Amino acid sequence: MSTQNDKARLFHCLHVPGQPLVLFNAWDAGSARAVAEAGAQAIATGSWSVAAANGFADGEHLPFAFALDNLRRIVAAVAQPVTIDLESGYGDAPALVSATVAAALKGGAVGCNLEDSFPTDGRLRDMRDQTARLAAARQAAEDAGVGMFINARTDVFFQKPADVHDMAMVDAALERAHAYADAGASGLFVPGVVNEPLIARLAEASPLPLNIMVMPGVPGRARLAELGVARISHGPGPYRGAMQWLAEAARAAMA
Amino acid sequence: MSTQNDKARLFHCLHVPGQPLVLFNAWDAGSARAVAEAGAQAIATGSWSVAAANGFADGEHLPFAFALDNLRRIVAAVAQPVTIDLESGYGDAPALVSATVAAALKGGAVGCNLEDSFPTDGRLRDMRDQTARLAAARQAAEDAGVGMFINARTDVFFQKPADVHDMAMVDAALERAHAYADAGASGLFVPGVVNEPLIARLAEASPLPLNIMVMPGVPGRARLAELGVARISHGPGPYRGAMQWLAEAARAAMA
Repeated sequence: MSTQNDKARLFHCLHVPGQPLVLFNAWDAGSARAVAEAGAQAIATGSWSVAAANGFADGEHLPFAFALDNLRRIVAAVAQPVTIDLESGYGDAPALVSATVAAALKGGAVGCNLEDSFPTDGRLRDMRDQTARLAAARQAAEDAGVGMFINARTDVFFQKPADVHDMAMVDAALERAHAYADAGASGLFVPGVVNEPLIARLAEASPLPLNIMVMPGVPGRARLAELGVARISHGPGPYRGAMQWLAEAARAAMA
Repeated sequence: MSTQNDKARLFHCLHVPGQPLVLFNAWDAGSARAVAEAGAQAIATGSWSVAAANGFADGEHLPFAFALDNLRRIVAAVAQPVTIDLESGYGDAPALVSATVAAALKGGAVGCNLEDSFPTDGRLRDMRDQTARLAAARQAAEDAGVGMFINARTDVFFQKPADVHDMAMVDAALERAHAYADAGASGLFVPGVVNEPLIARLAEASPLPLNIMVMPGVPGRARLAELGVARISHGPGPYRGAMQWLAEAARAAMA
């Protein structure tokens, strides 16, 4: 049986630009097991899905204690490395982010997502504030002795309507990517970007392996690989699809 | 907003022989909401699914505190009456069954399933023992002032291989049905029976509305209606189907 650090190392190795790791996000032990048995190399939770499956709204309305218990059940259910979506870290202060990351490591995670927008209104945090928060997360991982993959998510592409997504937003994301890398982040997650030239530029200039989220308009896996992407997340898609299947099957059973 | 007793009354009224209530079993708040939005008149949990979704084996390995919290989240997520699968009541003694039912009522359930086999090995309990346990469940509901729908499940058809399922087993189930009805049960659940003449005989002679579980070989809804069935449960099917959809979608995303 591999140790948590072995799994963390494996998870790092799975991030190869041009050969993207596909994360078909799970929300509980059962969905994690289904995705693992389908051949997934790693398991990622999606906060939206975990919240929805349990009747909560997204944006840290899911109690963190529940998210942690859920993480433990997932880690116990699968052999693959598990990364947890920690939203905005469940707290503004770096010390709170550090405590959140330490708890996730204790729960068996070898990776986490930490986003740079406020859970309340989605506004971007000041870059230096977020850098301090990511440095605190890295310190927590070092204190725990686990080479955690810290996926720094930037929400620059969620700040404006889609039609004004332009190179200036790529530059803003890249400026943050450099600061986040210096603070100890392992990956850059830019959800909301769909345009090929923007994705290509991000992949080329990011100091960190690039993670793209599947959403309408995003190219397929093969094209994302060609563009240099290292990780593809499906976000709420798998949960929504499963619930759509369920609703249709329920309708058929009642018809 | 309807009170718990209003919902209990509605749930009783939904049990009409010949016009079966279809319960497309859910396992968490999200799946309950999906089934409710598909037009379900009531929501039922399935213990197998709740356990599997959270990495536990069936047979009361799921901690009861978790099942209760899950129930509360489901009740908060849907407007429909909710019935909970309480397996064998989480305890042998009538007083323990009573405590379990009281907790489920406090959690917002207006119905429950209680089975007459042991969670450890599936053997049938002595009929008088089970009758006392059902009477304790009814007393707990009366003490709570809620007209709970107590669905008495008998596992006589799980005691022998399918090829010896015959009228003698129907008679055994009916003997229990009468005793359970006298003890205050509201419905009779006979999973494992698939044969039309046996289902027809059960429906005809049961003193309680008959609940059949969908499994390979069981006739479709229209035919079950003709046979006089009052309730159709899908058991683990909805969960398994959703996870199969998820695994196939994951495979496609990684291919």
